[in-house]
Amino acid sequence: MSETLTHLDSNGNAHMIDVSDKDVTKRTATARSVVKMLPETLKKVIEGGLPKGDVLATVRIAGIQAAKKTPELIPLCHPLMLTKITVGINVLDDCRIEILCTCALSGKTGVEMEALTGASVAALTLYDMCKAVDKGITIVETSLLEKHGGKSGSWSVNNG
Amino acid sequence: MSETLTHLDSNGNAHMIDVSDKDVTKRTATARSVVKMLPETLKKVIEGGLPKGDVLATVRIAGIQAAKKTPELIPLCHPLMLTKITVGINVLDDCRIEILCTCALSGKTGVEMEALTGASVAALTLYDMCKAVDKGITIVETSLLEKHGGKSGSWSVNNG
Amino acid sequence: MSETLTHLDSNGNAHMIDVSDKDVTKRTATARSVVKMLPETLKKVIEGGLPKGDVLATVRIAGIQAAKKTPELIPLCHPLMLTKITVGINVLDDCRIEILCTCALSGKTGVEMEALTGASVAALTLYDMCKAVDKGITIVETSLLEKHGGKSGSWSVNNG
Amino acid sequence: MSETLTHLDSNGNAHMIDVSDKDVTKRTATARSVVKMLPETLKKVIEGGLPKGDVLATVRIAGIQAAKKTPELIPLCHPLMLTKITVGINVLDDCRIEILCTCALSGKTGVEMEALTGASVAALTLYDMCKAVDKGITIVETSLLEKHGGKSGSWSVNNG
Amino acid sequence: MSETLTHLDSNGNAHMIDVSDKDVTKRTATARSVVKMLPETLKKVIEGGLPKGDVLATVRIAGIQAAKKTPELIPLCHPLMLTKITVGINVLDDCRIEILCTCALSGKTGVEMEALTGASVAALTLYDMCKAVDKGITIVETSLLEKHGGKSGSWSVNNG
Amino acid sequence: MSETLTHLDSNGNAHMIDVSDKDVTKRTATARSVVKMLPETLKKVIEGGLPKGDVLATVRIAGIQAAKKTPELIPLCHPLMLTKITVGINVLDDCRIEILCTCALSGKTGVEMEALTGASVAALTLYDMCKAVDKGITIVETSLLEKHGGKSGSWSVNNG
Repeated sequence: MSETLTHLDSNGNAHMIDVSDKDVTKRTATARSVVKMLPETLKKVIEGGLPKGDVLATVRIAGIQAAKKTPELIPLCHPLMLTKITVGINVLDDCRIEILCTCALSGKTGVEMEALTGASVAALTLYDMCKAVDKGITIVETSLLEKHGGKSGSWSVNNG
Repeated sequence: MSETLTHLDSNGNAHMIDVSDKDVTKRTATARSVVKMLPETLKKVIEGGLPKGDVLATVRIAGIQAAKKTPELIPLCHPLMLTKITVGINVLDDCRIEILCTCALSGKTGVEMEALTGASVAALTLYDMCKAVDKGITIVETSLLEKHGGKSGSWSVNNG
Repeated sequence: MSETLTHLDSNGNAHMIDVSDKDVTKRTATARSVVKMLPETLKKVIEGGLPKGDVLATVRIAGIQAAKKTPELIPLCHPLMLTKITVGINVLDDCRIEILCTCALSGKTGVEMEALTGASVAALTLYDMCKAVDKGITIVETSLLEKHGGKSGSWSVNNG
Repeated sequence: MSETLTHLDSNGNAHMIDVSDKDVTKRTATARSVVKMLPETLKKVIEGGLPKGDVLATVRIAGIQAAKKTPELIPLCHPLMLTKITVGINVLDDCRIEILCTCALSGKTGVEMEALTGASVAALTLYDMCKAVDKGITIVETSLLEKHGGKSGSWSVNNG
Repeated sequence: MSETLTHLDSNGNAHMIDVSDKDVTKRTATARSVVKMLPETLKKVIEGGLPKGDVLATVRIAGIQAAKKTPELIPLCHPLMLTKITVGINVLDDCRIEILCTCALSGKTGVEMEALTGASVAALTLYDMCKAVDKGITIVETSLLEKHGGKSGSWSVNNG
Repeated sequence: MSETLTHLDSNGNAHMIDVSDKDVTKRTATARSVVKMLPETLKKVIEGGLPKGDVLATVRIAGIQAAKKTPELIPLCHPLMLTKITVGINVLDDCRIEILCTCALSGKTGVEMEALTGASVAALTLYDMCKAVDKGITIVETSLLEKHGGKSGSWSVNNG
């Protein structure tokens, strides 16, 4: 009674890529998110005075914790054991703050999504801490800057 | 022996806003993320053929699940019981895909961060499913479109 | 440049049901999972001697914890605040163990999925603790027994 | 003052098996859950028209995400880094849908529980999306089909 | 065939207390953890110089995030929607640091465990950031200071 | 327009230690938490009769599950794949209960925080199950007893 009558699967169905037979190599990736805000908001980020308190430390911890949660958030990402996560914060011109997240591990698959998730959630946290004083605050970019390791080798946004 | 000698706290310390005494009102918010890709990537998103499979359904589920996880991801967000989460996907001109996330609840605090987190993680998932064929894919915007309810009433990006 | 050119959504897209305007009522549900095993396995469940130890307490805690995680596991379930979770364990004839999970809350949506998830994960935990001594152990049923509350009122497996 | 007077432990206490000294080998497992429904429900699963939308994609993503969560759900399971998770869906005769979940990794312990958890949560998600139109829908089986790798080698439901 | 033959439950089985019929009242609780360290470690906590960086902000965020996770960690705790979480840090004499965590909500059950979990995880985070320079660092106390609200009313450590 | 104008980072910022280039070795750690209670509470822990039921099994499972969650709870801890977690419970004199948690893995970083987190959450769970009958119950110590493996070798509380 249990023979299969109809497959409801096709090549288009969502699935994790099978990385069982890939080599374990050291892999790193760096992503960034850029947040644009009002001049007076930027001033409060740098000098203090936002209603939810110490913004830079909160942003950093949120980004580190989110990078670890990537396989819970991005459905087709593999569980990974990151050996390094850093979150850096820079002020750019034009009232923009850049959040850089770098991840590394020895593993069978790359860590681009981990770096991007870390940068994104750090940017959302910056947004959360500023939104009471700046309703138009916007994340104007989230992108990969560079990655290294694995079969496809190194790539960077500047020279592809 | 246990008298306090020195407080290591100051007004600048990170803390959740106390919403204990706020009114319970219906609150909604809509956020969007916009992803820019190559023309041939966009074709595969619409027509199928990406290596990880059915991209639109995966993006939608990822956004819905992420909106529920907002208080785990954004450190100073309150736990909430969302009564509605929708994720919509539109093709804009110039090879851009727009992801809209709307959240609603009856509660003591707004749902902007839930809508923004849903849109962001949906956009990261779109990125994840396209990155094998489009290394320069970029999230070019994540922002709040409108919010309603609560003491501060309605706000939209167009008329502040 | 941002006008919508093509909606990639249709009525068939996955979405959470909007319960914003539903009434808050007391809701309960009871589900069960039934696990069939070898006679000597059943003996060890009852009398002890399984390699991973105290099976009944572990099964009960696993079911309680899983019921709380339902909205993380079932993508279109709403976050809920359960006010009661119980897990009961009975021996049926024919070497079967029945796990009953009952959940309750005052809320806008039913708790069937919470009861079913609690019963299922409890059954999987029973499986996990027995599998070293019984490779053919099987969960032979997971179903809803009854539910009460909400607009659709009471339902039970016996009288629809 | 701190010498131990009474141990409250015994051989029957729940504990994770120590796998520290096991070999790392490639391990795979396939499990299935079977869901029985009304003919008109099955028609809607295949052709569309369920109130929560696109059921097959949602079921697949839910199963993949749940397999990753196995060590959170099953108390005595080890944390693992799965390298492959697939969820397949077939229509059997007699108004039954079969969900197959296959997991793989290189590791110190088997992945049966991961495959079973993936299949179970996928089946619960199918249940969730059909329950508004079919209150008697039932998961009629969850079992292991086969496993490979590790000290105990290969096993399948057909030839033990 | 499915009549119950033997109940494996007894009054001693673990279960969540049913709070379905309790009143919703405002409830608060404050707990503390005290960490004892070497004088040179305390100096670095206050003045900076620990290998993992900014200790006080990390401790505060960890405590806030952990309080929200209480129902995931303490098996028989109910899911709750905290409306306030604060973490304060004080230096006591004798090289001790006191972490205070206060939680509040309007709900059917108290928030003692949330305050205790927040204080404990904050203390563990302080431990984590100091352990490279102080192997004997110890959490010397975790206790409830006071609670208010609910049927049993107010209680404080000083006047019971 | 995107050149960096100001770094908001300094040596004091919180960051995960980079363990990418550390050796994989077997590492173990044992931590303990000690809980002091009233004589009549201790009697109920040993003989049964607490309102939430079977305390020892619940404490053990809570500790095992919490040790796995350490990287979610302690922000700067690395994700790890523990190969062993045990929780032991002993009665000491003076109405004290000692919880011992031992963790092991083959990895690039130690497991002290995993053992400490397991012991702490087990102690909080003991607290939770006793607090209805003993409002003054207190965790009087959480500390590391010993650790082995890694570059720094063995350490124990008795001979440093």
